[in-house]
Amino acid sequence: MDLMHPNSSTTPAASTDDDYPTSTTTDFSLPSVTLQKLPHLSDYVPNLTALTNPIDRSSFHHPFPGFYLSPSDVILRHILFDLSSAAAIGGGSLLAYHRAGPRRTIHFDPAAVRVAIVTCGGLCPGLNTVIRELVVGLWDLYGVRQIFGVPSGYRGFYSMEPMKLDPKMVHNWHKRGGTALATSRGGFDLDKIVNAIEQRGFNQLYVIGGDGTMRGAVKIFREIQRRKLNISITGIPKTVDNDIGIIDRSFGFQTAVEMAQQAINAAHVEAESAVNGIGLVKLMGRSTGHIALHATLSSCDVDCCLIPENDFYLEGKGGLFEFLDQRLKQNRHAVIVVAEGAGQDIIPRTDKQKEEKDESGNPVFLDVGPWLKSELKKWWERDHPGELFTVKYIDPTYMIRAVPANATDNLYCTLLAHSAIHGVMAGYTGFVSGPINGNYGYIPIEEVAMARNVVDTKDHKWAWVRSVTNQPDFLKC
Amino acid sequence: MDLMHPNSSTTPAASTDDDYPTSTTTDFSLPSVTLQKLPHLSDYVPNLTALTNPIDRSSFHHPFPGFYLSPSDVILRHILFDLSSAAAIGGGSLLAYHRAGPRRTIHFDPAAVRVAIVTCGGLCPGLNTVIRELVVGLWDLYGVRQIFGVPSGYRGFYSMEPMKLDPKMVHNWHKRGGTALATSRGGFDLDKIVNAIEQRGFNQLYVIGGDGTMRGAVKIFREIQRRKLNISITGIPKTVDNDIGIIDRSFGFQTAVEMAQQAINAAHVEAESAVNGIGLVKLMGRSTGHIALHATLSSCDVDCCLIPENDFYLEGKGGLFEFLDQRLKQNRHAVIVVAEGAGQDIIPRTDKQKEEKDESGNPVFLDVGPWLKSELKKWWERDHPGELFTVKYIDPTYMIRAVPANATDNLYCTLLAHSAIHGVMAGYTGFVSGPINGNYGYIPIEEVAMARNVVDTKDHKWAWVRSVTNQPDFLKC
Amino acid sequence: MDLMHPNSSTTPAASTDDDYPTSTTTDFSLPSVTLQKLPHLSDYVPNLTALTNPIDRSSFHHPFPGFYLSPSDVILRHILFDLSSAAAIGGGSLLAYHRAGPRRTIHFDPAAVRVAIVTCGGLCPGLNTVIRELVVGLWDLYGVRQIFGVPSGYRGFYSMEPMKLDPKMVHNWHKRGGTALATSRGGFDLDKIVNAIEQRGFNQLYVIGGDGTMRGAVKIFREIQRRKLNISITGIPKTVDNDIGIIDRSFGFQTAVEMAQQAINAAHVEAESAVNGIGLVKLMGRSTGHIALHATLSSCDVDCCLIPENDFYLEGKGGLFEFLDQRLKQNRHAVIVVAEGAGQDIIPRTDKQKEEKDESGNPVFLDVGPWLKSELKKWWERDHPGELFTVKYIDPTYMIRAVPANATDNLYCTLLAHSAIHGVMAGYTGFVSGPINGNYGYIPIEEVAMARNVVDTKDHKWAWVRSVTNQPDFLKC
Amino acid sequence: MDLMHPNSSTTPAASTDDDYPTSTTTDFSLPSVTLQKLPHLSDYVPNLTALTNPIDRSSFHHPFPGFYLSPSDVILRHILFDLSSAAAIGGGSLLAYHRAGPRRTIHFDPAAVRVAIVTCGGLCPGLNTVIRELVVGLWDLYGVRQIFGVPSGYRGFYSMEPMKLDPKMVHNWHKRGGTALATSRGGFDLDKIVNAIEQRGFNQLYVIGGDGTMRGAVKIFREIQRRKLNISITGIPKTVDNDIGIIDRSFGFQTAVEMAQQAINAAHVEAESAVNGIGLVKLMGRSTGHIALHATLSSCDVDCCLIPENDFYLEGKGGLFEFLDQRLKQNRHAVIVVAEGAGQDIIPRTDKQKEEKDESGNPVFLDVGPWLKSELKKWWERDHPGELFTVKYIDPTYMIRAVPANATDNLYCTLLAHSAIHGVMAGYTGFVSGPINGNYGYIPIEEVAMARNVVDTKDHKWAWVRSVTNQPDFLKC
Repeated sequence: MDLMHPNSSTTPAASTDDDYPTSTTTDFSLPSVTLQKLPHLSDYVPNLTALTNPIDRSSFHHPFPGFYLSPSDVILRHILFDLSSAAAIGGGSLLAYHRAGPRRTIHFDPAAVRVAIVTCGGLCPGLNTVIRELVVGLWDLYGVRQIFGVPSGYRGFYSMEPMKLDPKMVHNWHKRGGTALATSRGGFDLDKIVNAIEQRGFNQLYVIGGDGTMRGAVKIFREIQRRKLNISITGIPKTVDNDIGIIDRSFGFQTAVEMAQQAINAAHVEAESAVNGIGLVKLMGRSTGHIALHATLSSCDVDCCLIPENDFYLEGKGGLFEFLDQRLKQNRHAVIVVAEGAGQDIIPRTDKQKEEKDESGNPVFLDVGPWLKSELKKWWERDHPGELFTVKYIDPTYMIRAVPANATDNLYCTLLAHSAIHGVMAGYTGFVSGPINGNYGYIPIEEVAMARNVVDTKDHKWAWVRSVTNQPDFLKC
Repeated sequence: MDLMHPNSSTTPAASTDDDYPTSTTTDFSLPSVTLQKLPHLSDYVPNLTALTNPIDRSSFHHPFPGFYLSPSDVILRHILFDLSSAAAIGGGSLLAYHRAGPRRTIHFDPAAVRVAIVTCGGLCPGLNTVIRELVVGLWDLYGVRQIFGVPSGYRGFYSMEPMKLDPKMVHNWHKRGGTALATSRGGFDLDKIVNAIEQRGFNQLYVIGGDGTMRGAVKIFREIQRRKLNISITGIPKTVDNDIGIIDRSFGFQTAVEMAQQAINAAHVEAESAVNGIGLVKLMGRSTGHIALHATLSSCDVDCCLIPENDFYLEGKGGLFEFLDQRLKQNRHAVIVVAEGAGQDIIPRTDKQKEEKDESGNPVFLDVGPWLKSELKKWWERDHPGELFTVKYIDPTYMIRAVPANATDNLYCTLLAHSAIHGVMAGYTGFVSGPINGNYGYIPIEEVAMARNVVDTKDHKWAWVRSVTNQPDFLKC
Repeated sequence: MDLMHPNSSTTPAASTDDDYPTSTTTDFSLPSVTLQKLPHLSDYVPNLTALTNPIDRSSFHHPFPGFYLSPSDVILRHILFDLSSAAAIGGGSLLAYHRAGPRRTIHFDPAAVRVAIVTCGGLCPGLNTVIRELVVGLWDLYGVRQIFGVPSGYRGFYSMEPMKLDPKMVHNWHKRGGTALATSRGGFDLDKIVNAIEQRGFNQLYVIGGDGTMRGAVKIFREIQRRKLNISITGIPKTVDNDIGIIDRSFGFQTAVEMAQQAINAAHVEAESAVNGIGLVKLMGRSTGHIALHATLSSCDVDCCLIPENDFYLEGKGGLFEFLDQRLKQNRHAVIVVAEGAGQDIIPRTDKQKEEKDESGNPVFLDVGPWLKSELKKWWERDHPGELFTVKYIDPTYMIRAVPANATDNLYCTLLAHSAIHGVMAGYTGFVSGPINGNYGYIPIEEVAMARNVVDTKDHKWAWVRSVTNQPDFLKC
Repeated sequence: MDLMHPNSSTTPAASTDDDYPTSTTTDFSLPSVTLQKLPHLSDYVPNLTALTNPIDRSSFHHPFPGFYLSPSDVILRHILFDLSSAAAIGGGSLLAYHRAGPRRTIHFDPAAVRVAIVTCGGLCPGLNTVIRELVVGLWDLYGVRQIFGVPSGYRGFYSMEPMKLDPKMVHNWHKRGGTALATSRGGFDLDKIVNAIEQRGFNQLYVIGGDGTMRGAVKIFREIQRRKLNISITGIPKTVDNDIGIIDRSFGFQTAVEMAQQAINAAHVEAESAVNGIGLVKLMGRSTGHIALHATLSSCDVDCCLIPENDFYLEGKGGLFEFLDQRLKQNRHAVIVVAEGAGQDIIPRTDKQKEEKDESGNPVFLDVGPWLKSELKKWWERDHPGELFTVKYIDPTYMIRAVPANATDNLYCTLLAHSAIHGVMAGYTGFVSGPINGNYGYIPIEEVAMARNVVDTKDHKWAWVRSVTNQPDFLKC
C-alpha cells in the first residue's frame, strides 16, 4: 500500500534524486485511522443519570453552536508522514482520540457529587494551580459544592480527615509552590483506599501524581469497575521530568526549564571567573534528559549535556575528558549539565550497592553529581598536576521543583483541570486529559500509565543540542 | 462523502442521543491531503550547485540514518475532525507541509555564501536570540563565514553599512532585550533594496519582522525571482501579539504573557488595597487579543478581559458597568485587562479623527486605555456620587517587549533559526519556517503573509476565559 | 569656640596648606549634646500601670544583662564634623535621641491592651510586612490578643468595622504587595476619629502613612493629651519617595529603587534598538528626586537624571536639548530619568491651571512625562527634520509601588515594627521609631512631621550622579 | 568621670527607678575624640607632585563651595552612649575617621598614573561593578588612561599579562555576576608581586578581596613603604559573609540575603508539602552568621537559625530535637537555616580530621549541612519509628554568590569605588574606604585587616531573631 494517492497529478518524490525538492502541490491519501476507545461509566453502570449541562443555564455563557463537543469530535495523534513509505512516522496504524471539552449531557447530578482530590509523590510546579482550578471549575461551572482534598497522598484516603475546599480558600494557591494538600510517597493500599472512598461517599476522584501514582490509579479504576461503583476516576500526570508519553508535555516542565537557567548561569559565572573552571549542574531526570536537554538549548552557555538516553564515557578518544581538555584550552572554562539518570552504568558500585535493589527490583540509584565532580578532580590532578583547576557543583533540584508555576504552566494547568472536569462530569472514567499535538484530548489512563517519553537521540532536537554545544556523541568508533 | 469508513463495525455517532459516549474502538478514513508546494531556487535557477551537507563531515555529528529529511517528509496541518460530518474542522481540503530540517544535499557552497540578516518593526523578546542563532548555526554547522547584520531595518540595506557578525560577537546577545542590529519602521523601497542586495553580493536573506515586513519580503522574493537571482530569502515572523497564522505561535509571545503577569499583579494589588478600586491594564494586541487572553487565563486575578474579537459595550443590561457594579459590591475591587485593539468602534472620534486614515486607509487607531479609565470615572461619579472610587491604569507595553526571551522562547528562537538555515542551505526560498502542531515545517511566505491568527470566540479557550472570569459575553439579547 | 581641644598635642589642620593630609593621630572635643525630649504617658497620666516586661518570663529569651534599654541609652544624630570650624556639619547644637528597644518596665497590661493599626495614603512596598510584624510582635512578645486593623485609612475609624487580626491570619502578608487593610486618602475628621477611638476602647494606635498622615497623627496625639487619655500613639512614616527627615531612609524605598531598574532597562533597550532613540522614564518623587537619583546611580545606563531639587532648562547652551544632541551623535541613543516633581516651573500652564490650587494652596501638579516627551519630539522635528527619531516613554509607578518588599525592606519593616511596639509598651507616645545613623531611636512625631529629606545638590552623592552620567548641571552661566 | 554635664538642669536618670522615662530635654558632654591617623605617600615620599584636581576643569561639574573635602572633615565612629556610665557603648576612647571624597589637591599626575586592579578569593555579587566603576571613575573624573586588570588574583601579578581596560570594555560588566578579571585563591608571593608591580610601572593598586587578601595587601603596603616607592595601595574588602569590621557592611551582602530568600522559600514549600517535613538550608558564613541572621529575619518563614556565634546542641532539654518535636507537632513542618560555620565543635571528627589542620593551623572545616541532615534522620527513626519524615537539604551557595549585584549593592559598589579613587588620587595609601555609620570614610587597612564583624548575640538584632523564630537560646541551664 502506498500513501500516495494513485491519481496524484504530480510525483515529486518520484525523482531518483531523493534530495530534489518537491516544489509542486501534490495530493495523497492516508491509511485508515483508529479511534481510541474511552471507558465510560455507562459501560457497567445501568440507568446512569443524564442531565443537561448546567453551563446551558449560565448567565454569562450563552453556549454557541458548537460549544459542546460530541463523541464524534476527534483529534489525530500521528501527524508526521513519510510519503515514500507505506506508513506513518512512528509506525503502526494511525490513532485518534476523543477531544476534551464540555458535553451537552452530563451524567452526574452536581448536587450529589462528592469530589476527592489527591496529590502523590514529589513536588512539581503547578500542583496548586491544578488543585485550585479543579475546585473553581467544579464550583463555578457545574455548581458542585462538596469538594475535598485528601491530605498527604494515597495514605490520606484511609488515615486522615479530608479537607473541605472552596473557591475562597484556594483563591491564591496558584501563586504558591508545592501542594497545599501535602503529599507523600507510597502508602498505596488498594482495599483500604477503595473502601474509604466508598465510606466517604466520593464519586469523583482526581488523582495527581507520577507514573507510580498513575499505575495505582489504574488499579483503583479496575477495582471500582469490579465493584461496579458509580465513581469516576481521572488521572492528572505530574512529572516535572516530562517523561510521560502521548501528551505533548507535562505540567511544571516549562517552569523547571526556566528555573534551571539560574543554576546554569551561576555555574557559568563560577566557571568563567576561575582559572580552568568547570561548572557542573545536575538537573532532574532519572529516566530521561528532557529538562537537561531543554535547559541546555535555552541557555546557550552549556558545553556538554549528559543524559540517560545517550551513554557517555570519560577516558580515551572521544571521551568527556578529552573534550574538556580541548574546551579548557580554548576558553579556560566549561559548563556541564548532567541529568540525574545519566552515567548509572559507569559509576562504580560497591558490593553492597550491587546487591541492593529498589522497590521495583532495579539496581539502586547512584548520585552522578558528586561522582562526576570527584572524577573530574582526579583526572585533572593526574593529567595536569600543579595547574589550577576548580569544579563548582550545583544541585538546584529543590529550588526548581518548589517554585510556583510560571504563566505558561499556569495556563496549562488551568486547561488541564477544566478538561478533566468536563470529562468526568460527562461520565468518562479511567482516563487522562492532556494536549495531543496542541489540542486537548482524552486518553485511557491504562495507555498513559504504560507510555514513556524519552529523548529520541535520533531526533533533530538532540542533533540540535549537539550542534549548539558541539559536544561529542560518545559513540566509540 | 462520509468520513466514517463504511465497513466500520461500530457506529457510535449513529445513536439518536448525540451525547452518548463512544466507548468502543472504531476505524475511519480521512479525505485526501494536499501537500503545499514550496518555492525552490531550482524553480528558476538552472545548474544549481549541489553539494553534500557539510554536517556529514562534522567531527561531532555522525548523522544517523534518518537524520536528513527529504521532500517526502511531511507534516499534517489539519488534525481535528468531526466524524459525523463530511469535512475536517475548519473546512476545505486537508493540507500538509514539508518538514523542516537538514537536507543531505545543499545548494549553496558555504564558502560563497554571503548572509544578510535584518530586523524590522517594533521590539519583541527573542529578536537577539534569533540573530545569535542564525550566526552561530550558519558558522558552526555549515561553515559560513560571511554573515552581516543590516542595521535599522529595511532602510539599512541601501543607506547604511552592514555589520560583520561572528559567533564571538553575538555570544551573549540572547541575554539582552531588543535588537542589537537596531530596527525601524518603514523605509521599504523595493528597487533600492534589491539593488543593494545585488551590489553587496548577498545570496541569503533572513528577514525578521511583522506582517508588514513579511509583505515586503514577498515583494523582494518576487523581484528576486523576476531578476532570476540565485538568492534565497526566508521570513521569520516577529509579532509579539501572536497574530500570525498557520504556525503554532510566534516567538516572544510566551515571554510577553509571562511579563504581563507583573502588570496584572500590580493592578490587582492596587485595586485590592483601595475602596472600590479598579485596576486597568492595557496589553498589546491591535487586531487580536491573544496576549490579553493568555495573560488573563494565566493570572486568575482578572475580572474582565476585553479583546478586539469580542465587541463590548458599557451601559445597560449585560454591559461592563453593570458587571463592575456587581463585582465591586461583592469584592470591593476588580481588575480589567483590555487589549489595545478592543473598543475601537465605540470610542467616540473627533471630526478630525474621523477623517484621518492610517497608511492602509483604515481609521486611525485610538488609545483605549485612557478613554476607558475616563469613562469609568464618569460612570462612577454619575451613579455613585460621593462614594470613594479609584482607577489605577497601567500600560506595561515597553516593559514587556524590551525584556530578553525566557527559556521557552529562547529554545523556540533557536529551533526557528536553525530550521530556517537548513531550508535556505537546501535551496528553498520564499518560505517561512515554523511549528505546525508542534513540529517544524516550511510554509510559503506568501501564505503566511496573508494568514491571520485571531482569537476564535467560538473556541473553547475563549469559553474558558469567560468561565474563569465569569464575565459577560456582551451579546445584547 | 573651637572644636579642637586646646591641649591637643598635634594640630593637623593648622597647616597653611589646607590640603596637606592629616596623617597623625589627634584628639579633639565635641560641643555639648542635647538629648531630645520624648513624650511619655506619665507626662499627663497619673498612677500609670507599671509591670515587668513579659519578655522576662519568656521560655526562649533569657534576657541577658544589657538586653533592656534604659532612658540613658542614647544615639547621636550629628556625626560629621569639620574640625577647622566651630560647629558640627549641618550647624546647631548636637542632638541625641533615646534608643529604641525593650524596656524592663512596661506601662500597659497586655491583657488590657486594645490595638488599632491603620494605613493611610498611597501604596508602598512593605506596608503588609509592617502590619504583620506589629501583629506578630505584639502577640508573641507581649501576649497582646486584641489587635485590630482599621480598614481604608483614617475614615475607617468612624465609618467601618475594625478587622480582628491574629498571627495566623497575617502569616503570609509580607509576601503580598499593597495593604491588606486597604487604604484611602483624606477622611481625616479629628473629633470623629478620637471619639471612635475612645468608644472602641483602643489604647494603642499604630498609624502608618505619609507626611499628611503624620500631621494628622500629631493632631490626634494632641487631642489625646488634651483629653488626658491613657492612649499611646506612634507614627510609622510611609513614603516610597524617601522624603521623610531625620531617619536614615523610609521603608519600601530600596524596593522601589530595585524595581525602577526594570523600567530603566526597558527604556535603555528601546533606545538602543532604535535610530536616535530616547528612553524616557518617569519615577516617583514629587518634592524630591531620591528614587530617580538612586535608580540612576544603580543602573549606570542613564544619560540624564532630572530631579525637583535641580532646576533644568531645555533650550540653549547647557540645556537638555544641546546635551541630547551631543549624546545622540556619540551613541545614537540616550536614556532620561525624570522625577515626577521635576520641571514644574517650566511646564506651561493653561489659564485654568494657573488658577487651580491643590488642597494646600499650591499650584496644581502637572505631569512632566508626557510634556517632556512632546517637547522632545517638537525639538527634533524642528532641528532635525526628516531624520528618524523615537521617544519611548515609560511610567512604571504602579508596577513599582505595588510589589512586596524585598529582603532588605522586609528586615527593615520588621525592625521598625518591633521598635515601635517596645516604645509603646514602655508608655512612650507621640513618637516615631526609626534608624538614625544605622541604629534605631525614638523621635518626637512632631519633629518628624516637620522634617523633610531632599536631595542635597551640594552633597557628593549628587556630584556622583553627575560624574556617572556626565550630565549638565543646568547652571546658566 | 560622668558623661552628664554637671550643670544639666534636669536629671532624668537620677531617678531610683531606672525605667522611668526621660521625657525632658537634657544636655550632656562627650569625652574627647581621637582622629585616626591615615597613611599618606608624603609620609615617606619627598617632593610629591601636587596638582589641582582636574574635576575643577570639568565641563559638567562646577564644583560648588564645600565640594572638596579637607583633612579636617571627619566622621564619628562611636555614636551610642549610656549616659549613666562613664564611657561610650563599646568602651575605649571615641574614634573619628577622615571622610572620603575628592580633595582639591591631588598627588598623582593623571597622565602618569598606571593602575592595577586585582580580584582575589571567592566570588561575591558586585565584584564586576567595583571594577567597572574604578575604570569609569578614573577615566572620566581624573582622565587616567592606563588602567589594567590583573588576571586570576595575586598570582596574576607575576605570571600573567595584565588586561588593558577602558570604559567601553567594562560598560555592561555590572550586569554580570562573577569577576571578569577571574580570580583564584593563594598565589601570594610578596617579592614576586612587588617586583612585578615595579617592573610594570604600576603606581596605583586597587586590591579587592577577603580578609586573607587584605592581610596580603598590608604586607604589600609595608614592602612598598620599605622600598619607599611612590605607589599608593587601597584595599576594597570583599566578603559576602559581611565579616569585615568597622565598615557598616560589605558589598554583595544585601544581594546574598535577597537571593537566600529563594532557597528558604523552597525549603519552606518542601517542608509544608510533606508530612513532618523539615527544610534545611545551609547559608554562607564560616566565622559569622550575618547572612543566616538577615535571611531569617527577612523571610519570616524560618523556625530556627543556627550561627557560629551561638553554640547549639541537639539532644536533651532546650536542644534542637526537643524544639523540632514541638514545632512538628504544632505545624507539621519546620525550616532550619544553618550558617556553614555553625556546629563545628559538635560535629564528630575522624582521627584523620582531628589531625588535619588548615593553612592557618586551625582544625579543618567540616560540612555542617549533610551532618545535620543525617542527625535529623537518625533522631527521627529512633524517636518516631515508622512515622513519615522528610528532610530536604538545600545548599544554594554558588547560586547566591554568582548573581550580579542588586540595585542597593550596585549603588554601594559605585560609591565604594569612587571613594577609593578620590583617596588614592589624593595620595593616601594603605587604606580602605567604606561607610561608617552611613557616611564614607577612610580607615587604615591594617586596622581593617584585624577587625572582625561577628553577630553580637547580646545585641537586639539577635534578640529579634529569637523573637521572630521563638527558637531556643541553647543556653543549658
